[in-house]
Amino acid sequence: MPEAIYSPGLEGVIAAETRISFLDTEQEEIVIRGYNLLELIRKASFVEVVGLLLDERLPSAERRAELERAMVEAIVPPVVYEILRKLPASMHAMDRLRTAVSALAAGDSEANSAHPESEHRRAPRIIGQVAQIVANLSHIAQGEKPEAFSPNYSFAENFLRAIVRRDVSSHETRAFEQSLIAYIEHELPNSTFAARVVASTLADAYGALTSAVASLKGPLHGGANEAVMHMLLEARTPDGLEQLMRDKLVRKERIMGFGHRVYMRRMDPRAQLLKEVLHTLIQAKGNGYIYADMCQRGEDIMRTEKGLYPNLDYYAAPVYYLLDIPIELYTPIFFAARTAGLMAHIIEQHQENRLYRPRVIYTGPRGLKL
Amino acid sequence: MPEAIYSPGLEGVIAAETRISFLDTEQEEIVIRGYNLLELIRKASFVEVVGLLLDERLPSAERRAELERAMVEAIVPPVVYEILRKLPASMHAMDRLRTAVSALAAGDSEANSAHPESEHRRAPRIIGQVAQIVANLSHIAQGEKPEAFSPNYSFAENFLRAIVRRDVSSHETRAFEQSLIAYIEHELPNSTFAARVVASTLADAYGALTSAVASLKGPLHGGANEAVMHMLLEARTPDGLEQLMRDKLVRKERIMGFGHRVYMRRMDPRAQLLKEVLHTLIQAKGNGYIYADMCQRGEDIMRTEKGLYPNLDYYAAPVYYLLDIPIELYTPIFFAARTAGLMAHIIEQHQENRLYRPRVIYTGPRGLKL
Repeated sequence: MPEAIYSPGLEGVIAAETRISFLDTEQEEIVIRGYNLLELIRKASFVEVVGLLLDERLPSAERRAELERAMVEAIVPPVVYEILRKLPASMHAMDRLRTAVSALAAGDSEANSAHPESEHRRAPRIIGQVAQIVANLSHIAQGEKPEAFSPNYSFAENFLRAIVRRDVSSHETRAFEQSLIAYIEHELPNSTFAARVVASTLADAYGALTSAVASLKGPLHGGANEAVMHMLLEARTPDGLEQLMRDKLVRKERIMGFGHRVYMRRMDPRAQLLKEVLHTLIQAKGNGYIYADMCQRGEDIMRTEKGLYPNLDYYAAPVYYLLDIPIELYTPIFFAARTAGLMAHIIEQHQENRLYRPRVIYTGPRGLKL
Repeated sequence: MPEAIYSPGLEGVIAAETRISFLDTEQEEIVIRGYNLLELIRKASFVEVVGLLLDERLPSAERRAELERAMVEAIVPPVVYEILRKLPASMHAMDRLRTAVSALAAGDSEANSAHPESEHRRAPRIIGQVAQIVANLSHIAQGEKPEAFSPNYSFAENFLRAIVRRDVSSHETRAFEQSLIAYIEHELPNSTFAARVVASTLADAYGALTSAVASLKGPLHGGANEAVMHMLLEARTPDGLEQLMRDKLVRKERIMGFGHRVYMRRMDPRAQLLKEVLHTLIQAKGNGYIYADMCQRGEDIMRTEKGLYPNLDYYAAPVYYLLDIPIELYTPIFFAARTAGLMAHIIEQHQENRLYRPRVIYTGPRGLKL
């Protein structure tokens, strides 16, 4: 075995070469296929960024229309909804989503192929299927009929309409779409790493995506946006939040929505942008000012007391709340957006594959006899 | 970011400290909680090794009985069999298994807990549930009723009886049990690494196990035992196998069942032992000699031509074939056995956790503007 240094959690260890994205912590820039993610959130549509991730360049108008059609018109195999109907409503939404994404393979005659071309071809369909499944998770759990997507609306508008089952305004759609772009891709977080590890056995996209759902369920990873919203609802007012946070700080409890392994003590640029999105949404709706005030108070306290800055989940939570999205869908929506980045990583892994198979330091006993 | 060397596939990189197992490539010994795996295969029962993995010591007679009871009497939630009935029989057995393992969370009121005590408590039940699901994968796909386990038989005998739906002899049970012990734990292969990566988000055991199924489906990992059997059946005779292998070698095609990342050019000690198990089984049954002859021929050719030695899958395949096990269950059985090792790893990961979050080398463009 070569000499090796052990870094718990592989912190600072390089685990992949990628042309997809990079967190430049020096320049505090999130790079997606060469573009600054913040610029993409400000100026691009979700479908354009999907095209950028899959094709390695921004799509032409024609390609964009083709992608949007494939995503909007993707059909969820009926067996997937039948399975979701069988699962108890008390089951965690991410467990239901994990089971549904695994079952999606049932509808794909190429399910066992890990060929990059086959995966590139099916990627827009899978992104559309996952969004429809996520939009319908709560409806089906309540015994209601799944909502279908319609060719009359954009992908982002379809996704939001299917969740909230009402007409949505253009500023609501844009706020939702911007959150989707903010979540779309983020280098090598645990879920993307898990997907690449699984894909490196030449397992197909369904298995790799299922593993990413499993990872995102973890409280240290994807569950933060939901935890933030529960905290804001419990606090009710800026003073309430201050009290709640100071109590948690005294008890040395973890406060969700702050800090990030890679950003360290700096602010997540996506959080800054979602803060702007929140403010714009509140202005347009003319209500929800209290959430902006609470979030600002929480941000000030954590910066002063702990030197910690909010991450994306901290500001995505009140945006979703003001859009009337059920809280149990916040993490599933994160996954639905991230499916695009994950498909790019799975394809890249299969293009130049090397099986992940690290070693251990053994600290147990030796030489025991039966 | 600290300076880091990039090793594709994390080859030679230490990714975990563990007290569970170690592949000592110098002494060619597979260490399981201090014991030599070969000694465990020769002398212990599967349930004893489950106890060793979970409790860090060999179980007392009382603990052994308790474990066996929990494994044999574990109840698969009816919803899991209902879901399997919904899935098309044409779906890959590992895709059906992955979906079923994900759905297992539906039957566990503690499903969201990643607490080591809670996971230690449910581990024997999950091992029993997974074995029952695996034993019934093909039956349910054929529209037949699932077989239940019975307190009248050992865990290993129950597992084999439920698969083949007939009385089994003691030498058949022992051969099957020895294969299960051979597969039970193997340090940090891709599937175990995937499970630990996912578990490190504090996701629960169901998500981590689901990821391991996804990984094991990959042709570079778990599918080898099935590929070996298809090759032997295609070849039909030792001469046929020689011809088939030489043709593959000329065409530079991969021949499954040989070589292993960590053993390099040495023989997998488990393969040597399963070769003995195969010979004992053939003697006891009085048939199947041709598979021993074919395997020997293939072993000789690969050693001479490529300097490669067989791995465990190479000799597990004909053992399973002579036990009348459907080929599509070979990889699911590998997973059912490995569930014990995986539960030990998931518990260990949660006991002293650090989120896996490595970094990348970015090789794409920079500075593009919209």
